[in-house]
Amino acid sequence: MRKYYYNKLTAGELINLTKRPAVDFTKAFETVRPILNDVKKDGLKAALNYAKIFDLFDEEEIRVSEKEFIDAENNIDKKSKSAIDLAAKNIEKFHRKQYPKSYSVEIQDGINCSREFRAIENVGLYIPGGNAVLPSTMLMLGIPARIAKCRRVVVCSPAKNGKINYPLLYAAKICGATEFYKIGGAQAIALMAFGSSGIPKVTKIFGPGNQYVTAAKLLASIDQDGAAIDMPAGPSELVVIADKDADPIFAAADLLSQAEHGADSQVVLLSDSEEIVNRINSELVLQLNELPRKEFAEKSLQNFFSLITETLDQAIEFSNRYAPEHLILNFKNADKYRSKIQNGGSVFIGGYSPESAGDYATGTNHSLPTSGFAATFGGVTVEAFMKSMTFQKLSKQGLKKIAPAVETLAEAEGLLAHKKAVSMRFKKFK
Amino acid sequence: MRKYYYNKLTAGELINLTKRPAVDFTKAFETVRPILNDVKKDGLKAALNYAKIFDLFDEEEIRVSEKEFIDAENNIDKKSKSAIDLAAKNIEKFHRKQYPKSYSVEIQDGINCSREFRAIENVGLYIPGGNAVLPSTMLMLGIPARIAKCRRVVVCSPAKNGKINYPLLYAAKICGATEFYKIGGAQAIALMAFGSSGIPKVTKIFGPGNQYVTAAKLLASIDQDGAAIDMPAGPSELVVIADKDADPIFAAADLLSQAEHGADSQVVLLSDSEEIVNRINSELVLQLNELPRKEFAEKSLQNFFSLITETLDQAIEFSNRYAPEHLILNFKNADKYRSKIQNGGSVFIGGYSPESAGDYATGTNHSLPTSGFAATFGGVTVEAFMKSMTFQKLSKQGLKKIAPAVETLAEAEGLLAHKKAVSMRFKKFK
Repeated sequence: MRKYYYNKLTAGELINLTKRPAVDFTKAFETVRPILNDVKKDGLKAALNYAKIFDLFDEEEIRVSEKEFIDAENNIDKKSKSAIDLAAKNIEKFHRKQYPKSYSVEIQDGINCSREFRAIENVGLYIPGGNAVLPSTMLMLGIPARIAKCRRVVVCSPAKNGKINYPLLYAAKICGATEFYKIGGAQAIALMAFGSSGIPKVTKIFGPGNQYVTAAKLLASIDQDGAAIDMPAGPSELVVIADKDADPIFAAADLLSQAEHGADSQVVLLSDSEEIVNRINSELVLQLNELPRKEFAEKSLQNFFSLITETLDQAIEFSNRYAPEHLILNFKNADKYRSKIQNGGSVFIGGYSPESAGDYATGTNHSLPTSGFAATFGGVTVEAFMKSMTFQKLSKQGLKKIAPAVETLAEAEGLLAHKKAVSMRFKKFK
Repeated sequence: MRKYYYNKLTAGELINLTKRPAVDFTKAFETVRPILNDVKKDGLKAALNYAKIFDLFDEEEIRVSEKEFIDAENNIDKKSKSAIDLAAKNIEKFHRKQYPKSYSVEIQDGINCSREFRAIENVGLYIPGGNAVLPSTMLMLGIPARIAKCRRVVVCSPAKNGKINYPLLYAAKICGATEFYKIGGAQAIALMAFGSSGIPKVTKIFGPGNQYVTAAKLLASIDQDGAAIDMPAGPSELVVIADKDADPIFAAADLLSQAEHGADSQVVLLSDSEEIVNRINSELVLQLNELPRKEFAEKSLQNFFSLITETLDQAIEFSNRYAPEHLILNFKNADKYRSKIQNGGSVFIGGYSPESAGDYATGTNHSLPTSGFAATFGGVTVEAFMKSMTFQKLSKQGLKKIAPAVETLAEAEGLLAHKKAVSMRFKKFK
């Protein structure tokens, strides 16, 4: 396992350590482009055709029926149901506070400007499937959409043997999803972005996915007839900053919980204590052997590295440059370092705040920016399901007061009709 | 000038009226792709090469000097200076209220979750140039960036004869822009997105531009090494809803102020009174002849249409489907219809609220979503220059309480290391 010393690295070497393995989307774009084009042209028919080829979907009905939702609610095991209920309650509690408030300003006498928010009416949520069962992602996207009061909440997720698992259907139901289609992959993204007869298009698509799903979302986002997207998604990441008093068992368990996601998951350990780094590294090897997903975690650990810094501030500086999706601050008085964290999707403070708590049940969102995008994007929020609008109301006197400024700037910009739209309003009264 | 009657149109015909003329980016993508690739590879050198070819730029120094800023401040004419100062003051006053507040929630005993915002550190602002002088756009982007406290605010705008005009430089100075480069077009977008030696890349690019600038922004937004963008930009638009008491002179002047932007500008008139529609149409012809930019306005009016509805509610319903960039409600008691407006970038209420007031000086932002994107995006805000982060801190007892839910969901999703990251923390104390 690689180990670096901050003070022995050049500035260039440090920057290289913040880089993620490049994901070349060129091939994925080429693969999904014809899928998007076909679905844009032939709608559901084309989407079903691809679902048949890629997912062996050969049902007649793609839409989940009311009966299937009721079955799920009646037959889901009690333990899963109460876990989903608790997670939903906490997610609701955390996200409700994000509902944006309107404001109004009296800019000058007779000039009132205000801002209000409205829900995006048609949104699409993509929930990956295959062998995984992901009710948590459904909650993370569906609850903010419900709080925002989106009119149509369309969910797409691939079926297994024609069926969607109970936990996912139950989670979709409590989120108030209005439509659920048994379809995954790029064809699902295309179906939501372009719509079809009986399935109106959505204007924004949320949710994680493999590289084909991501490529399809990216292409849809630059298509005039497509849909906006939540953020570009990449492999999941975790940075742990630990000091000498951190429990190596906890830190290793946290690193492995990220590493098990997949071979391309990124995990990084930062510390001002070489001793704890060595102890965590040994612990990693021990715990790794007990994991059912050992194969994934082992591959992911090939990209793993530790960086030994002189101070915790140096570790935070590196983490800010790295801009991790998840960041665990497993050191004394970590709470006091909050304001120093500039870039990071979700931050976990102290020894009893493992990432998996936030992944599932504390209420924060787990749809987070990866690949360094945490420097630019936040995770999914209620506001992401809404858009702002500004309103302004001027009285005759209010307009008169700013008329000279408007006229001067319009003239400077060579837009005389802009000037006239103001001067006309006073001319005839002269 | 085309005139339709709402009740005589089929649903399909109504939907067609909400469609903008398609902008095919295929060609623009092909044109700008090599520019992006070259600048990504060779940085400033490649960017300057394109600036030479497209803009005949042959200066040695691309960066605006401190002296040029001081010259601009000393030599700008007084009228422009005070117009810019007033606009800046109002924009600051309106946008300051957008600075997002942190919040903190005690989710359960021992589980504290919070959200905070941080400025995006490196942002790029594109200000179109050529023959136009656009200090207003500089203010609309630069002031929110200043309020957000972005560390680096990089501005690009093409020079004319090697110079940037005084109003734009003065506006950039009062916004606190940290760097200003004399370069426009796709090469400017590429330079900001990928950076160069001595010019670190930015991670989000804002600002309007022609189809090549927009195409370059779109491609940069789906490049892993590129930059996020504010929104997809298209030709400017205005919908006016007028009732029988609206002043036809005002309404016509407003429509023309939008039409003069360019041949592809979209203007639409909605009314429940055919008489006022006829009067506004006659007034349009009269006023058109007095405009210096008559040629643009005339071409734009070829796409213009009026729609006569039975009621104002019907007009609003159509406008919501159209989702205009600008919307003027020039009818009695328009204020009461606020909550019915679902989709629209900036809304102007009453007879004395012309669009040009908001374009320049009331304080609202004029960087707004076009092409129907107002259904999904809002205009530029302070929040657009920031990103959110979540923090969570659990006590041992807090984690213990949600442990069963986390463990159940992790197990359901087949992620055993996620489960262990929680159970490990209690195991050794058992």
